[in-house]
Amino acid sequence: MSPSGNTRRLVVIGGVAAGMSAAARARRLDPELEIVVYERTGYLSYGSCGLPYFIAGVVRKATDLIARTPEQFGKQGIETHTHHEVTEVDTAAKMIKVRDLVEGRGFSVQYDKLVIATGGRAIRPPIPGVDLEGVFVLRTVEDGLAVSRFMREEKPRRGVIVGGGYIGVEVAEAFRQRGLETVLLNRPAQLLNNFDPEIAQMMQTELERSGVTVSVDDAAVAIEGDATGRARVVVTQRGRYETDLVLVGAGVRAEALLAGEAGVALGFKGAIAVDEGMHTSVPDVYAAGDCAETYHVLLQGPSYVPLGTTANKQGRAAGTNAAGGEEVFRGVVGTTVTKAFELGAAVTGLTEKAAIQSGLSPKAVTIEHGTRAHYYPSPGRIHVKLVWDPGNGRLLGAQIAGPVAEAKRIDVFATALHHDLTIEDLQRLDLGYAPPFAPVWDPILVAANVAAKS
Amino acid sequence: MSPSGNTRRLVVIGGVAAGMSAAARARRLDPELEIVVYERTGYLSYGSCGLPYFIAGVVRKATDLIARTPEQFGKQGIETHTHHEVTEVDTAAKMIKVRDLVEGRGFSVQYDKLVIATGGRAIRPPIPGVDLEGVFVLRTVEDGLAVSRFMREEKPRRGVIVGGGYIGVEVAEAFRQRGLETVLLNRPAQLLNNFDPEIAQMMQTELERSGVTVSVDDAAVAIEGDATGRARVVVTQRGRYETDLVLVGAGVRAEALLAGEAGVALGFKGAIAVDEGMHTSVPDVYAAGDCAETYHVLLQGPSYVPLGTTANKQGRAAGTNAAGGEEVFRGVVGTTVTKAFELGAAVTGLTEKAAIQSGLSPKAVTIEHGTRAHYYPSPGRIHVKLVWDPGNGRLLGAQIAGPVAEAKRIDVFATALHHDLTIEDLQRLDLGYAPPFAPVWDPILVAANVAAKS
Repeated sequence: MSPSGNTRRLVVIGGVAAGMSAAARARRLDPELEIVVYERTGYLSYGSCGLPYFIAGVVRKATDLIARTPEQFGKQGIETHTHHEVTEVDTAAKMIKVRDLVEGRGFSVQYDKLVIATGGRAIRPPIPGVDLEGVFVLRTVEDGLAVSRFMREEKPRRGVIVGGGYIGVEVAEAFRQRGLETVLLNRPAQLLNNFDPEIAQMMQTELERSGVTVSVDDAAVAIEGDATGRARVVVTQRGRYETDLVLVGAGVRAEALLAGEAGVALGFKGAIAVDEGMHTSVPDVYAAGDCAETYHVLLQGPSYVPLGTTANKQGRAAGTNAAGGEEVFRGVVGTTVTKAFELGAAVTGLTEKAAIQSGLSPKAVTIEHGTRAHYYPSPGRIHVKLVWDPGNGRLLGAQIAGPVAEAKRIDVFATALHHDLTIEDLQRLDLGYAPPFAPVWDPILVAANVAAKS
Repeated sequence: MSPSGNTRRLVVIGGVAAGMSAAARARRLDPELEIVVYERTGYLSYGSCGLPYFIAGVVRKATDLIARTPEQFGKQGIETHTHHEVTEVDTAAKMIKVRDLVEGRGFSVQYDKLVIATGGRAIRPPIPGVDLEGVFVLRTVEDGLAVSRFMREEKPRRGVIVGGGYIGVEVAEAFRQRGLETVLLNRPAQLLNNFDPEIAQMMQTELERSGVTVSVDDAAVAIEGDATGRARVVVTQRGRYETDLVLVGAGVRAEALLAGEAGVALGFKGAIAVDEGMHTSVPDVYAAGDCAETYHVLLQGPSYVPLGTTANKQGRAAGTNAAGGEEVFRGVVGTTVTKAFELGAAVTGLTEKAAIQSGLSPKAVTIEHGTRAHYYPSPGRIHVKLVWDPGNGRLLGAQIAGPVAEAKRIDVFATALHHDLTIEDLQRLDLGYAPPFAPVWDPILVAANVAAKS
């Protein structure tokens, strides 16, 4: 298949967040461009981060996670092919090899511009039994459907989650909501490794309060099956956990094998190296989303932060540039937010431990404060931790733990980090005040005032 | 009364938000300073902005609005006198005259430093009948108690509110929550004058949906009483509204008469003129809170924005400087937030109309968007209006209307305004994303993206 006449062709490998953002953006900028997307799984344009809420039953159907259908993309003039895996990229010939996973046939396609958006791959730790029946990861719609089908058909009473990152914490909530006896195992001594320990501890306490058995500093070493090959026991350094269902949430790695084999340079943590314009090391080849590295504004260098919101922004920039426009992605400050049960937790910038690890000598304070005027009914108190450079007063990072809806206050700190605000700058902010919204000194101002005094 | 020996004395006139902030701050900085506060009403340190919620019954007792008691201030070494009115300030002699309103006697007090925090005064429009029984304003704890007593004893079935600013809107909600037939009259054609009309209209719709009769572009011209001298009818340009209770929410004016008579320079809208350090035109005399003007960062000049949060910040700066420290108050960007029933509304910076009035040629867009991932249960959609300068892309202001808790997203825009962020800067913000918190493109980013395209 080659472009007909003078029509230029954009090929996008991967049709989830970054890939479809790139395709949609390119279409808006260039109505003439031929745009073809190949997606290995059976679904396009879905919100992977919604899968725990599908497991929980909060989202009814897995297909509810889909933002736009192939038909909708078709109407935009974007040709999409699910169950199509790209097996090889020849950047010299500007040609890819595609395998139709349903028909079992292969073919080649030429491109003028190529966006690689192959996403991330759920890590399966190399322990015995990790491939037994009843052991799942949660990354694709198919993964979600597999867990859901297993729960419906096998009616598990007990679930063990291996890994206490976001997915682990969110699935722990989901399992409890589905009535499972739930164990959360975490190899490091704290959950949510991108928080400082005392904030992560609040999440652990919330999980335990809600009936989740949490075992930290405890690595799974094997999964034992029964005679039918079904997972039955997770063996850890500290004990044995009988179970009917195992969910592995051991993190995500960039799916960059295809790019690497094609000679595209890889960077941080093996993710595809990109510049501000999402150009790779190879002309006319762009990368975006969980397969690519992400520039970190505070670390002033590449990082790996696989998140849907970043994937969309990167995809947008890649699509613009692939279509001949000009757009840059300036990077992230490392903002993430999660919840379990009644607790929301958010972080932006550097944690205290990350700041120390990167050679800084930060100061830090944590305050606890009300979230409404003291006389107004309140959803509860909030913890705010600030990390700053005592040399110049510059904010380095912030963390929040408190009532779910309050965690979005992190966005003020994210904005501050993008623009080098100091603690003194924070103290001066004219933030919204009325009794139903905040105390007369907003917790953000209280934290800044305490930091200024310390 | 004069200071004993070498002890220096700080006198504070007015013991609510700004006054008590100044006193508390001065005490922390200078443990030796004698600090005396005179407050005309019977209550100190109360949240005036909580009064509508006391009327609503959301706050049980009026005294719940009090943050700290005279005893608590006493333990800090702050001497407080309620029911004491300062009737004269002699800045040459550094002497004030005080009247004990309970005992009926007067006396003089010398000061080394003076903080004037006389607050604001509820405007009573000069219409016939405004002093009838059953006509109230809502400013002091005593005002709240008077309305509450009237409601308990007279069991009004109908209430008319004159004025559709914050107080009017919040009291309309309170009246409905107490089961009153409620009419809200507003002289201008839109409620909430510091919003643009289309956002104010959303608040009007929400009030009407909740059973409030709203009449805009309709001035009250008289209040008619019955034979016992009790208000019974509010007569407007457009009609007659029978009622059992009238609440006048016609705005607040700076209570600056005392300062003016003492020769302290008055400024914007008759409020006391102050610099960054809350110094007045007279040495050793400071002013803070609703009696003083407020520097507006966007207008680059004085404004009058009587709000509790500003009063506290100004009071803090005045207290620091009166105690010999150094602190500046850099001003406001005009952030305010309010709610009625299920709708929250917030504004920061300049509205489109205010920008035009101040000679700018702004552009503006308003978007409507979801507040959670499309598949996640949502509290509802949000409207975000952005106003910016097309010449340099700089944000001039933002407004939000939507589910109550979402209105605090305004704080991101407030932070942006303090630091001259552009629409492009907003597009790049790494805001918190997870399905229970936001869509993958946060409404703030969506609004910025739409603005960038327009």
